[in-house]
Amino acid sequence: MDVRLGANRYGKAECRVVRVVRDAGTHHLHDLTVSVALAGDLAATHLHGDNAAVLPTDSQKNTVYAFAADGIGEIEQYGLRLAHHFVDTQASIVWARVSIMEHPWQRLGPHSFQRTGTGTRVAVVTVAGRHAWVVSGVSDLVLLNTTDSAFVGFVRDPYTTLPEAEDRILATAVTARWRHAQPSSPDWAAAHVATRDLLVRSFVDTYSWALQQTLFAMGQRVLEHRPELVEVRLSLPNRHHVAVDLAPFGRDNANEVFRAEDRPYGLIQGVVHRDGVPPADEAWEDPWSF
Amino acid sequence: MDVRLGANRYGKAECRVVRVVRDAGTHHLHDLTVSVALAGDLAATHLHGDNAAVLPTDSQKNTVYAFAADGIGEIEQYGLRLAHHFVDTQASIVWARVSIMEHPWQRLGPHSFQRTGTGTRVAVVTVAGRHAWVVSGVSDLVLLNTTDSAFVGFVRDPYTTLPEAEDRILATAVTARWRHAQPSSPDWAAAHVATRDLLVRSFVDTYSWALQQTLFAMGQRVLEHRPELVEVRLSLPNRHHVAVDLAPFGRDNANEVFRAEDRPYGLIQGVVHRDGVPPADEAWEDPWSF
Amino acid sequence: MDVRLGANRYGKAECRVVRVVRDAGTHHLHDLTVSVALAGDLAATHLHGDNAAVLPTDSQKNTVYAFAADGIGEIEQYGLRLAHHFVDTQASIVWARVSIMEHPWQRLGPHSFQRTGTGTRVAVVTVAGRHAWVVSGVSDLVLLNTTDSAFVGFVRDPYTTLPEAEDRILATAVTARWRHAQPSSPDWAAAHVATRDLLVRSFVDTYSWALQQTLFAMGQRVLEHRPELVEVRLSLPNRHHVAVDLAPFGRDNANEVFRAEDRPYGLIQGVVHRDGVPPADEAWEDPWSF
Amino acid sequence: MDVRLGANRYGKAECRVVRVVRDAGTHHLHDLTVSVALAGDLAATHLHGDNAAVLPTDSQKNTVYAFAADGIGEIEQYGLRLAHHFVDTQASIVWARVSIMEHPWQRLGPHSFQRTGTGTRVAVVTVAGRHAWVVSGVSDLVLLNTTDSAFVGFVRDPYTTLPEAEDRILATAVTARWRHAQPSSPDWAAAHVATRDLLVRSFVDTYSWALQQTLFAMGQRVLEHRPELVEVRLSLPNRHHVAVDLAPFGRDNANEVFRAEDRPYGLIQGVVHRDGVPPADEAWEDPWSF
Repeated sequence: MDVRLGANRYGKAECRVVRVVRDAGTHHLHDLTVSVALAGDLAATHLHGDNAAVLPTDSQKNTVYAFAADGIGEIEQYGLRLAHHFVDTQASIVWARVSIMEHPWQRLGPHSFQRTGTGTRVAVVTVAGRHAWVVSGVSDLVLLNTTDSAFVGFVRDPYTTLPEAEDRILATAVTARWRHAQPSSPDWAAAHVATRDLLVRSFVDTYSWALQQTLFAMGQRVLEHRPELVEVRLSLPNRHHVAVDLAPFGRDNANEVFRAEDRPYGLIQGVVHRDGVPPADEAWEDPWSF
Repeated sequence: MDVRLGANRYGKAECRVVRVVRDAGTHHLHDLTVSVALAGDLAATHLHGDNAAVLPTDSQKNTVYAFAADGIGEIEQYGLRLAHHFVDTQASIVWARVSIMEHPWQRLGPHSFQRTGTGTRVAVVTVAGRHAWVVSGVSDLVLLNTTDSAFVGFVRDPYTTLPEAEDRILATAVTARWRHAQPSSPDWAAAHVATRDLLVRSFVDTYSWALQQTLFAMGQRVLEHRPELVEVRLSLPNRHHVAVDLAPFGRDNANEVFRAEDRPYGLIQGVVHRDGVPPADEAWEDPWSF
Repeated sequence: MDVRLGANRYGKAECRVVRVVRDAGTHHLHDLTVSVALAGDLAATHLHGDNAAVLPTDSQKNTVYAFAADGIGEIEQYGLRLAHHFVDTQASIVWARVSIMEHPWQRLGPHSFQRTGTGTRVAVVTVAGRHAWVVSGVSDLVLLNTTDSAFVGFVRDPYTTLPEAEDRILATAVTARWRHAQPSSPDWAAAHVATRDLLVRSFVDTYSWALQQTLFAMGQRVLEHRPELVEVRLSLPNRHHVAVDLAPFGRDNANEVFRAEDRPYGLIQGVVHRDGVPPADEAWEDPWSF
Repeated sequence: MDVRLGANRYGKAECRVVRVVRDAGTHHLHDLTVSVALAGDLAATHLHGDNAAVLPTDSQKNTVYAFAADGIGEIEQYGLRLAHHFVDTQASIVWARVSIMEHPWQRLGPHSFQRTGTGTRVAVVTVAGRHAWVVSGVSDLVLLNTTDSAFVGFVRDPYTTLPEAEDRILATAVTARWRHAQPSSPDWAAAHVATRDLLVRSFVDTYSWALQQTLFAMGQRVLEHRPELVEVRLSLPNRHHVAVDLAPFGRDNANEVFRAEDRPYGLIQGVVHRDGVPPADEAWEDPWSF
């Protein structure tokens, strides 16, 4: 028979972990969704149902909760501890990836919090044998400029009816990932805030002739200011806002009334990297898998 | 034939309206989802497909956009203008309800914004003949206390296994609606901020022996401080957080590590109203339809 | 103080129950989502946090699972057993509503199944003191006719730009609820299949001059053929399909190429009832709360 | 400056296309969601906002609709026509990927249809210069066995508390992709039905000692019977069903009453390929991006 098992991995996805730190009267909160994926010598379970090398996904979940008891620290640190643990303690496992989303809350009082929706912090930690790397990022960061965006001078083929736009709304939901040169940082939290702020300020400051231009500007700004990073990946949906034709109703529309559209949407994806750094190394098998 | 047409209504749901105000260099943004429902003498279309009294839902949508050109003001005002318009101009229509969600954005610069997820402002305006009333509210306002919540002294029937909890996480996603005595206000925006803040502060301040107690405290606080309101309705899911048993892994869990559960969830719903005000008048046919 | 507690209720929502019957080699499957809401003398918990009359929602969940062990039967029966139980055994509880969704599966073998998406069967059972009533229904039943639908002769106001449509696609996702005269049936399952088939056949057979006409035809057909029913409620979104203008690309579009739109959508809601039956009794406080 | 543009692509995502064929009295329906991604020499727009090489995503959408007028055929064919078109007609574009979901409908009559939820047919067509390849697949195919599944003999580390399961429910939502050796087929539709049936029958027939074993069995079965295919990729969430402990309520639970859990869930992913076929060629940069 000429059928073979190729690449494979398994794990527990979307463990919901809430960790409270009770620092005298003031409480602190981590609200996380943690996913684990493991790979290694797992042919026996696929070919014969022999689970002698299989750490149950239930045990992975237990590990996620048990390690939370030791403290989260920053999510990159928590991910590193977990990923190293699985590779170090399981003979069959040579590769572990821990993906963590941190859901944002605002403080309302010493032990009270309100959820916010201003972007989810992300960490994706991978340990492969003796090598480890860390990707940080943000998802669902929704940004909008009401002006300083144009789209002109594009190709006009027989299927092109779009008029040029000298002044349009530019809106997107940023998914960004940035790779650290080393799996360590003097201050993961401060680095996250600074990098995110660079992305946001770049979106705000850039006069955009295309969302592609904004994408590159965002990645460039980050790499220019954050020497610890080697690569930024961005996926930017173009959330179209169409000026409504109000002439039939005797009203002008001086770019004031828009219909926000759900689908279809443009989707711009790209990698910005430091010269000499392979843009698609083992950290991301696929640049498009966010 | 003994079959009759009963209550009925129709309209256009979920029009996505984005309105920009270009105030010199500083832009302002309203991001709305608007739904219209109309009722009246509409038997002919149901019984015979005779549409002579039917204003198309497409025209309702056009009206939503055309009126946006005149300015939104506050969503209660925009809803009142729209609802009165349909009843005043359509001979067949005696009842109109306009429901508006306002999606929140934070300012990043003179013409730049970032979406937030800290609750959606809502207005539901109803015009019935010469009568009009306004309900304001908030949805998806997610709050959490890490302590000052207990649940003890409850009924123990043969199906009860729940231990008493002296100290638990209390988390909910507030859906609140409050009815104004009059369909007018000196300042809808300030009233919204103040009412919302009363709800939030009451959640924060209340030592909760049951989510029901928190619910009543929230409604009571609002009515005590906002004389223009006559009724508050609250729907509060109890988002359970379960302390994980870490003893098998040799670790204590002093109420520090929790599993956040999706389903099932408790659901507490109630009305708090001013004495002498009918708690379920025509403003809401059903107290539970949020 | 002039603030009062009004209507209130509480319960456990969305318990996911899967019940297997092992009938020799052939297995049978019920896949349910069950929600419970209870009301009665619950002022003490709201006003003082005194839970002496509060059956925990956790106990309600346990009851849902324990009663499943006795067999589901049909979901109307299971709902009746549960709702009566809460009212009969809890001194403080005078009203119970049990809402059940049954997720559909197709048989693939003696113990193998495949999920289908052709509509979810629903039962909503209410017990209020000595009175009980049963509503059955279906949700997410998506139907489409490619012809035999027109929309002409409607009101043209200053905001109307819609052209008349002599031949259009008619598509909707049916949410239907039907109320039984008695809380009993010789065969709930057969009645469900027959009623659902009447709705579907009526949608298929009706030449539609308006979705309102289709709505009434669907309700009328059901009541004419199902004497055990007294009322049908329907909520029908109009899922717009817009013929795309292909003239700029040198192609005709003889009603063949359509863009399916997400939002906004028309929404048609109505009640069809037997003459002499109050159209909005205690079974549904609000005809629009599906 | 040491910052570089790496891999990038752009396009229009989620165009909703409904195509009706009016074959005398009998109508046929294609209901598609089509996404386009293009790559090539697009540095100028990223670096300078020069769009001279950018075909607007709006034109891509128009092309999707215009080509639909010529007939869909099977989605693999429609995808090939579109992908070749973009590469052949756009000087700057060297790579095009067209991803199509076909939403399933059942026939109710000559021009009437009902949506089903029994899996979405998928095609992903890629054209890179002169090379083209086709991946077909299915998403959201939900399968469940009530028996013939066990999980025993696994690793027990200090975080393992899971008991061995001799007889458990096995449930999953199959996402499968299979790659064709050639971008052509005598009958795409028949091949799709046959391949899907092989996946389903394999799930049904396999006595499963691990979901991994089921995964390999599914891929193996397909490759053994479909010589035109070279590779199958599967992503199988393990939708846990936990037998509820009913002992506190005086009831046995002989594997009859289960709680269906939402999160977390196991996630098993793997590739099964024909010997000598590279398991991760350019058809999928990442085996895990479904």
